[in-house]
Amino acid sequence: MARILTGIQSSGRPHLGNILGAIKPAIDLSLLPGNDSFLFIADLHSLTSLRDGNTRRDYVRAIASTWLAFGLDTSRTTFWRQSRVPEHTELAWYLNCFTPVPMLENATSFKDKSEKLTAEAGSNAASAINAGLFTYPVLQAADILLYDAEVIPVGKDQRQHIEMTRDIAGALNRSVGADILVLPEARIDERLMVIPGIDGKKMSKSYNNYIDIFLPENELYKVIKKIKSDSTALEDPKNPDTDITFQLYSLLASDEQIREMRGLYEAGGFGYGSAKKAFYELIVQKYATERERFTFYMTNNDELERELRTGEEKARAVASQTIARVREKLGFN
Amino acid sequence: MARILTGIQSSGRPHLGNILGAIKPAIDLSLLPGNDSFLFIADLHSLTSLRDGNTRRDYVRAIASTWLAFGLDTSRTTFWRQSRVPEHTELAWYLNCFTPVPMLENATSFKDKSEKLTAEAGSNAASAINAGLFTYPVLQAADILLYDAEVIPVGKDQRQHIEMTRDIAGALNRSVGADILVLPEARIDERLMVIPGIDGKKMSKSYNNYIDIFLPENELYKVIKKIKSDSTALEDPKNPDTDITFQLYSLLASDEQIREMRGLYEAGGFGYGSAKKAFYELIVQKYATERERFTFYMTNNDELERELRTGEEKARAVASQTIARVREKLGFN
Repeated sequence: MARILTGIQSSGRPHLGNILGAIKPAIDLSLLPGNDSFLFIADLHSLTSLRDGNTRRDYVRAIASTWLAFGLDTSRTTFWRQSRVPEHTELAWYLNCFTPVPMLENATSFKDKSEKLTAEAGSNAASAINAGLFTYPVLQAADILLYDAEVIPVGKDQRQHIEMTRDIAGALNRSVGADILVLPEARIDERLMVIPGIDGKKMSKSYNNYIDIFLPENELYKVIKKIKSDSTALEDPKNPDTDITFQLYSLLASDEQIREMRGLYEAGGFGYGSAKKAFYELIVQKYATERERFTFYMTNNDELERELRTGEEKARAVASQTIARVREKLGFN
Repeated sequence: MARILTGIQSSGRPHLGNILGAIKPAIDLSLLPGNDSFLFIADLHSLTSLRDGNTRRDYVRAIASTWLAFGLDTSRTTFWRQSRVPEHTELAWYLNCFTPVPMLENATSFKDKSEKLTAEAGSNAASAINAGLFTYPVLQAADILLYDAEVIPVGKDQRQHIEMTRDIAGALNRSVGADILVLPEARIDERLMVIPGIDGKKMSKSYNNYIDIFLPENELYKVIKKIKSDSTALEDPKNPDTDITFQLYSLLASDEQIREMRGLYEAGGFGYGSAKKAFYELIVQKYATERERFTFYMTNNDELERELRTGEEKARAVASQTIARVREKLGFN
């Protein structure tokens, strides 16, 4: 039984790329019998770059609703909002005192973000490069260590953060002379799925090329119609393998549907407009339940809160034990 | 009615210098009818330099016992341990995200501490210069802002930290478009009392020249006998104004006692040993009640806890309101 912990970024509403690339795989993982899954919405982290409170609330709600819509079972997976468990920031303070400043200065993600902010904001960058960004890896270490997490599934760019978590935990353990914090292992997902956006680049909020599958039907159709296609005439045969609509369609369709669609492309007389319509219809049909459940949670806040509170109680039950061990050893009890 | 907030360092047992220079004045201030006093033991801050848990526990207990022994009235003054109010670290995280990294890099106290650590530890300094030291001013800002404190009595070296607190609070207020945090004013104490230690330098834990007035009588007397004096012969007249024992005696004695002692010095035939004995006896007599009350709290942990819990409840009642305002505006509710 391995305890797996995953933090969910909360800097946007989940789109199809997030769903296929992260949400579905994480839910599948959480349903494996040998796994004890911990999943949290990292809303505290989002404050390092997102200031607006209403936007954050909307995002967090949409994220929670998406995970629940896609079948996350809160009776099996511990699912909570980071900001509702005060032990995260408390442990982060303790860990700060065991984290060398140069380690944070040398963190690749901090250097990248600082450079990006400096390029964008010029002389205003100083105020954008905030101490939250700087100590981000320490809060992340607290997120992990608080739950005795053993396995952290991450992309390659996050490997350094798990190393830092291990270093910080090791420093604290050595200082108190006891292994009170569990050193986690990164599980790097090599077969990372790249989902194309409507312009063919990786689907991403920052490229504004994403598909929000929870949009009302007419709005959703409008987005699908914007998928880039080439100028092959309606009557001519088309190459499905270079077409974005076909790629996206294939990600959702059954093998039989894919075969059929391939035939239509190659036969000619089948326009991209028809392919897009088929893709739109596939989304609406395939995700009918999920769209309904999403709307249910988005419009029934009490139900959403009820699901999240269950997780918060379970999370606190674990977190408070870890914090008690740390307090005891550091002399805060 | 001004709300005055004072943080008490917890990196050592209080000595006579702390009592005369800080504790007594703060208690006097707290008893003035127009003041609403908030006093907390900054134990979270102590982790930036003190790692040992048992030492911290001992210090915190001795500090709380000293303040209570000297008449701190917990029914009038809100008196608590910082680590028992989780809102301190929660607010510190929010504030981190509004604190420019260069502001912290340029903080005089951080530069001084880093230089000192580099001088002492050489190449090991990197691990001693930790992110707790670096973000110390942010936690301090949280300590202040959490309680809507208006007045912060500080030494000159802390003026910059109050300025930083105002800057951080201003940045958050501007970002959310509402004055949800109260900007505090520093009250610089110009007439800072310097209490000489047994070697004549400023009494300080780091010089190891301090007098712990709560020591058992024989140990206390041993320390007093170590007070530096010159080699004037017993029978000769002595200059009270250059003698450390006389200076210390004068800090505790009544005007009449001082006049009498001055006479004995100037008359000759009165040795430093007798002066030290008189000083020792003055401590034991003047602080008889305080010594008894100190021992009471040090040996009756339940009573000490009871006093501190009262303060913790009062502190949380205020802190939770501030945090609720911040959460609401930043989208964490």
